[in-house]
Amino acid sequence: MERIKLGMVGGGNDAFIGGVHRIASRIDGQFELVAGALSSMPEKAQASGAALGLAPDRTYDDFKAMAIREARLKDGIDAVAIVTPNHMHFPAAREFLKRGIHVICDKPLTSTMADAKKMAQVVEKSEALFILTHNYTGYPLVRQARAMIERGDLGDIRVVQVEYPQDWLTVDEESQDNKQAEWRTDPARSGLGGATGDIGTHAYNLACFVSGLKAERLSADLQSFVDGRRVDDNAHVMLRFEGGARGMLWCSQVAPGNENALRLRVYGAKGGLEWSQESPNEMWFTEFGKPKTLLTRAGTGAMGLQDGLTRTPGGHPEGYLEAFANLYSEAAAQIRAFPDMQANLLPGIDAGMSGMHFVDACVRSSARDAAWVTLG
Amino acid sequence: MERIKLGMVGGGNDAFIGGVHRIASRIDGQFELVAGALSSMPEKAQASGAALGLAPDRTYDDFKAMAIREARLKDGIDAVAIVTPNHMHFPAAREFLKRGIHVICDKPLTSTMADAKKMAQVVEKSEALFILTHNYTGYPLVRQARAMIERGDLGDIRVVQVEYPQDWLTVDEESQDNKQAEWRTDPARSGLGGATGDIGTHAYNLACFVSGLKAERLSADLQSFVDGRRVDDNAHVMLRFEGGARGMLWCSQVAPGNENALRLRVYGAKGGLEWSQESPNEMWFTEFGKPKTLLTRAGTGAMGLQDGLTRTPGGHPEGYLEAFANLYSEAAAQIRAFPDMQANLLPGIDAGMSGMHFVDACVRSSARDAAWVTLG
Amino acid sequence: MERIKLGMVGGGNDAFIGGVHRIASRIDGQFELVAGALSSMPEKAQASGAALGLAPDRTYDDFKAMAIREARLKDGIDAVAIVTPNHMHFPAAREFLKRGIHVICDKPLTSTMADAKKMAQVVEKSEALFILTHNYTGYPLVRQARAMIERGDLGDIRVVQVEYPQDWLTVDEESQDNKQAEWRTDPARSGLGGATGDIGTHAYNLACFVSGLKAERLSADLQSFVDGRRVDDNAHVMLRFEGGARGMLWCSQVAPGNENALRLRVYGAKGGLEWSQESPNEMWFTEFGKPKTLLTRAGTGAMGLQDGLTRTPGGHPEGYLEAFANLYSEAAAQIRAFPDMQANLLPGIDAGMSGMHFVDACVRSSARDAAWVTLG
Amino acid sequence: MERIKLGMVGGGNDAFIGGVHRIASRIDGQFELVAGALSSMPEKAQASGAALGLAPDRTYDDFKAMAIREARLKDGIDAVAIVTPNHMHFPAAREFLKRGIHVICDKPLTSTMADAKKMAQVVEKSEALFILTHNYTGYPLVRQARAMIERGDLGDIRVVQVEYPQDWLTVDEESQDNKQAEWRTDPARSGLGGATGDIGTHAYNLACFVSGLKAERLSADLQSFVDGRRVDDNAHVMLRFEGGARGMLWCSQVAPGNENALRLRVYGAKGGLEWSQESPNEMWFTEFGKPKTLLTRAGTGAMGLQDGLTRTPGGHPEGYLEAFANLYSEAAAQIRAFPDMQANLLPGIDAGMSGMHFVDACVRSSARDAAWVTLG
Repeated sequence: MERIKLGMVGGGNDAFIGGVHRIASRIDGQFELVAGALSSMPEKAQASGAALGLAPDRTYDDFKAMAIREARLKDGIDAVAIVTPNHMHFPAAREFLKRGIHVICDKPLTSTMADAKKMAQVVEKSEALFILTHNYTGYPLVRQARAMIERGDLGDIRVVQVEYPQDWLTVDEESQDNKQAEWRTDPARSGLGGATGDIGTHAYNLACFVSGLKAERLSADLQSFVDGRRVDDNAHVMLRFEGGARGMLWCSQVAPGNENALRLRVYGAKGGLEWSQESPNEMWFTEFGKPKTLLTRAGTGAMGLQDGLTRTPGGHPEGYLEAFANLYSEAAAQIRAFPDMQANLLPGIDAGMSGMHFVDACVRSSARDAAWVTLG
Repeated sequence: MERIKLGMVGGGNDAFIGGVHRIASRIDGQFELVAGALSSMPEKAQASGAALGLAPDRTYDDFKAMAIREARLKDGIDAVAIVTPNHMHFPAAREFLKRGIHVICDKPLTSTMADAKKMAQVVEKSEALFILTHNYTGYPLVRQARAMIERGDLGDIRVVQVEYPQDWLTVDEESQDNKQAEWRTDPARSGLGGATGDIGTHAYNLACFVSGLKAERLSADLQSFVDGRRVDDNAHVMLRFEGGARGMLWCSQVAPGNENALRLRVYGAKGGLEWSQESPNEMWFTEFGKPKTLLTRAGTGAMGLQDGLTRTPGGHPEGYLEAFANLYSEAAAQIRAFPDMQANLLPGIDAGMSGMHFVDACVRSSARDAAWVTLG
Repeated sequence: MERIKLGMVGGGNDAFIGGVHRIASRIDGQFELVAGALSSMPEKAQASGAALGLAPDRTYDDFKAMAIREARLKDGIDAVAIVTPNHMHFPAAREFLKRGIHVICDKPLTSTMADAKKMAQVVEKSEALFILTHNYTGYPLVRQARAMIERGDLGDIRVVQVEYPQDWLTVDEESQDNKQAEWRTDPARSGLGGATGDIGTHAYNLACFVSGLKAERLSADLQSFVDGRRVDDNAHVMLRFEGGARGMLWCSQVAPGNENALRLRVYGAKGGLEWSQESPNEMWFTEFGKPKTLLTRAGTGAMGLQDGLTRTPGGHPEGYLEAFANLYSEAAAQIRAFPDMQANLLPGIDAGMSGMHFVDACVRSSARDAAWVTLG
Repeated sequence: MERIKLGMVGGGNDAFIGGVHRIASRIDGQFELVAGALSSMPEKAQASGAALGLAPDRTYDDFKAMAIREARLKDGIDAVAIVTPNHMHFPAAREFLKRGIHVICDKPLTSTMADAKKMAQVVEKSEALFILTHNYTGYPLVRQARAMIERGDLGDIRVVQVEYPQDWLTVDEESQDNKQAEWRTDPARSGLGGATGDIGTHAYNLACFVSGLKAERLSADLQSFVDGRRVDDNAHVMLRFEGGARGMLWCSQVAPGNENALRLRVYGAKGGLEWSQESPNEMWFTEFGKPKTLLTRAGTGAMGLQDGLTRTPGGHPEGYLEAFANLYSEAAAQIRAFPDMQANLLPGIDAGMSGMHFVDACVRSSARDAAWVTLG
């Protein structure tokens, strides 16, 4: 089967998430990276393209030029991955979407609510797909958690506890020539939310994706603990869901001893589920009144819906890159089926808007002393 | 060394915490139980006393009668353990305190704020000691955590995360002849707080004890998930401490898969600490920028302040009863030194009032849609 | 109920296991320590007795004198705990057993096989009970493991993996004034086995107790890694059980990072069990083809046979001292029932002989280059 | 940079390890699969090739024909992955090696010692590279463990404990149409060793790779617990290394509750290391006398030698496929540098012969009642 031709915007040398997207696109052999505007700096764009083996004439330093030319090429790209800092998501996505090139965009959707709304309009008008890489939803056991809750294994959901602590911003990294820290703590590039936008959106998305619940209101207490930091680096959030369930969300980038400790716990009238991203191949399930059981990704507790989402037997750990690859492989299937639409769980513009509303609500609530605010 | 003569109010057959106090008082051989008003029902009082080997003439069914007589006996009790449902703490304690008999009282302090204030007055006037068994502060590694924070190992504290989930009230136990559930969900006997009073006070006490911080304000969202339940069975609380640290507290009795999962995490500018009551012999410590280390109760990372608080070498697990016994042994030392006052970490009336203010604030805040309220 | 009057031989200041026996005897309030020959050095014996509140006239420095006098006293001891170094177990036990005083003896049985055989004869002739404190069999989940295997939950047993690593003898402690290390590495006091006798006997006992299997032959490779050490400090043993099951046993006192990591895993045709002494409140059980389940001491997976063996609900960790206390409490019940014999699981002379045969076989096998030898 | 052209022998539909090799070869974008003899059955070979997008004229059903033709093609394959059952490793490898095509071969080396010796001769004569995928050596923390031991962090090594339990052959899978079980338990295809060959070789390789030790002698007790099974499904092995260190190795395919639980523990005079394949992103290190530390793949305890071996920051778990990909990427670097030889840690013919000697010694020893035998 021929590979889908992929382009990339952003992701030059020094970048983190660009490399992740490239690996994720390769794992299942569905994509071939053939073009890129990997940097807006011509020299860096060329060097980065050459390092990746891109043809010089498909190595751009301007995503608009890239969109225009690739749309005209007979063998132009089918899809583009957008892996820039947040503030460039919208301008870049727009150029491709309006030319019918599918977009696979990193999260959060945009850096501002204004841009997010424009993005939604562009997506609506576009004839191309828009996929947002809320990659943690690609973990097989996250899918199983969602399916178990959907079929009622936990009964009515009462409590959702989600947390996402990291520690890499415990000190003032942004003034120490750390590029990742620089743009992620710069409101102009990252958006009003710091930790809330960078990782809180993941936590929120995961909680909603798994529980199947929609949050109505939240109360948020945001902090910037490091002197001079311009965005939040720690957030405490209380959530109220439709139907009466309640939740707490904690995200932090100043919690020493935590690398990337996204963790979700959901409790209902009949049982509970607990999953941690750093041990993604196992999940605790308790049916109330019975012993705890440890379900494994591809073991005897697996539901079978993992077909296509796992590649190895139980005990052969898969991780972050494979979960990310699951989104790419589902994207490939959708792109191949296009314009027919498949039933799939790929996050798109709705998940993106939802994340933007979350950040916006957190910032608004916190500005009003953690008053309850409605999610837009 | 002669044993301290101990009496007990409450703790007859069917009780849980009375048995715990008795074992805790025996472990280090400092106390001898010699009298009791183990129940207000004469038959049960007699049967319970006989089962414990108490002399018939020192088996009472009326704590006031017991206080009066024991105070007059030449060999009367030196101290009394009060292990009744919450609403009886104050009336019982008063009788002994005013007669100069030391009181070791289970938490929370009382069932109402009015009683709590009276208790404070009685304690102040009394010539006897008042000790409140916030037993989780008796764990050796909890003491070490406090000492490490005090000496600055974590730097300025920024974030406190404390949680205390259980699952035993996931269903309507209180209408199924479960005595423990009955009184703990009865506002008249337990107080206005359900989970908040029963276990939230422990979590709050632990967070303050270890961090050395004082909470100024809180915002609480309390729920009663089980139909017909008259008190909260789940609570989400955001905390603001003096000096700017922030916290989250979650307590729940409806979280399937959690037995008694009290857990504390504290993060500062220089490091983090994590401790879980169900694995009490180990504690994670991370100095920011270095690998996580696992400190053990009596291992190489122990600070030495455990002398007298542990009884066995590393790898020989001590648990809940030994932590409880530590409070009894410190109480014994204080009673023997009395009226001289030792420097010790025994919780007393202040910790009790603090817990009452916590429950009161939670209830007030929740009634006002989780508005911030000041802790009294 | 009146307490059983207990004496103690050994266990003066500096001792480790004597203090453990005393606490274990107190926890359930069944025993009262009233006499002791805590040391053979008169001054130390007096000081140690005084520290424990023994009456001066019941503080001895000669266990034989103690046995003679206590046997004659109207209120003399009912039972004696023997907690000396191994080579004194037999001479001490003999004096009490022949005078009808029950003996609770620490393991291993003796330091030499010759003494062990004499001990067996003395026990057989005696009208008193002989109990050997293989304390790890007192853990509630160890009892449950045994019961589960007995009722066939695992099917026919195939493989037993048991290990007991420690690290406290990684360096030459015995020449650094460490009393515990001194006698435990001295063949004259400890016996021919070092790690094999001190901890290997526990591991072997646990494996047999839980699996219900009897070992027929073993092949052992013993090492003394620390220069100048006179006994083994690490042992690798392969086991063959009656009926065809096979096992491996590893014990070590030179494995850095291990405090007291006794761990047992048993696998049969239908399932597997895994238990670790350092996390004694939980046990893994897998029915082949189903997810792993985590059984807890007093949780929903508990079998109920724990009644009387646990004191607190699930999530309130019990540990080493409570497991030890379980043997004391069962001993108390047996002593009270005496001379009627109860059905109980208390280890006695048979377990003691079995342990001696284990050490003897290890030493013999290792001397013959790990040849298979029959357990006596 | 142009991709290396890769062929594959074996790995058609139904296969497990072929798919793993393909993913591993894709992850870092260094290889392009362009030819294959994926099955010796023409129809299956065609179908499998088509499913992978191979050109029909490069889809073979005869590896010899493939070797002949590819060697002549101008754009023929540079390297071939051999992922057949064990007994075909040698005949296949020979055809490619003698035509100068590099071979990446799955383990174990061959099914018989006779073939292994022939393989060694062919490799020696060949002008091409021979790489054996002992993939567990590709884990970043396994590399770090080796480097730490090499620089002396553990002092002189004393004890090596390695185990590799699985449970998938607990019942008679081989007669239930399970293709994987069929050939792996067929001595003609698998070799004399069952569990010893399939997973014992991995455990043995890992122990030697990390410790830097060479085993001199072993004593092995092999079992076939499942009725009718023709190869061992459980093995207990004692090891003696050059220089005096000792080891134990347990491998089993009948241990319910174990998926793929390869685990290595190494102890020396100064410290200990513990690593488990199912949690490959962390490793315990204890310097004797200090608290245990938890090193993470890309965290603060990482040594930096992971550059190129990890793709994501700490807390973003990498797993089995990434470790496998590390071997492929090192192979790519070596192939590109060829005929210059790089300093690298890629396992080759020596590791393969070592594994064969291990299986051979296990079988010989077990046949002689676990007598010590010398590793060839």
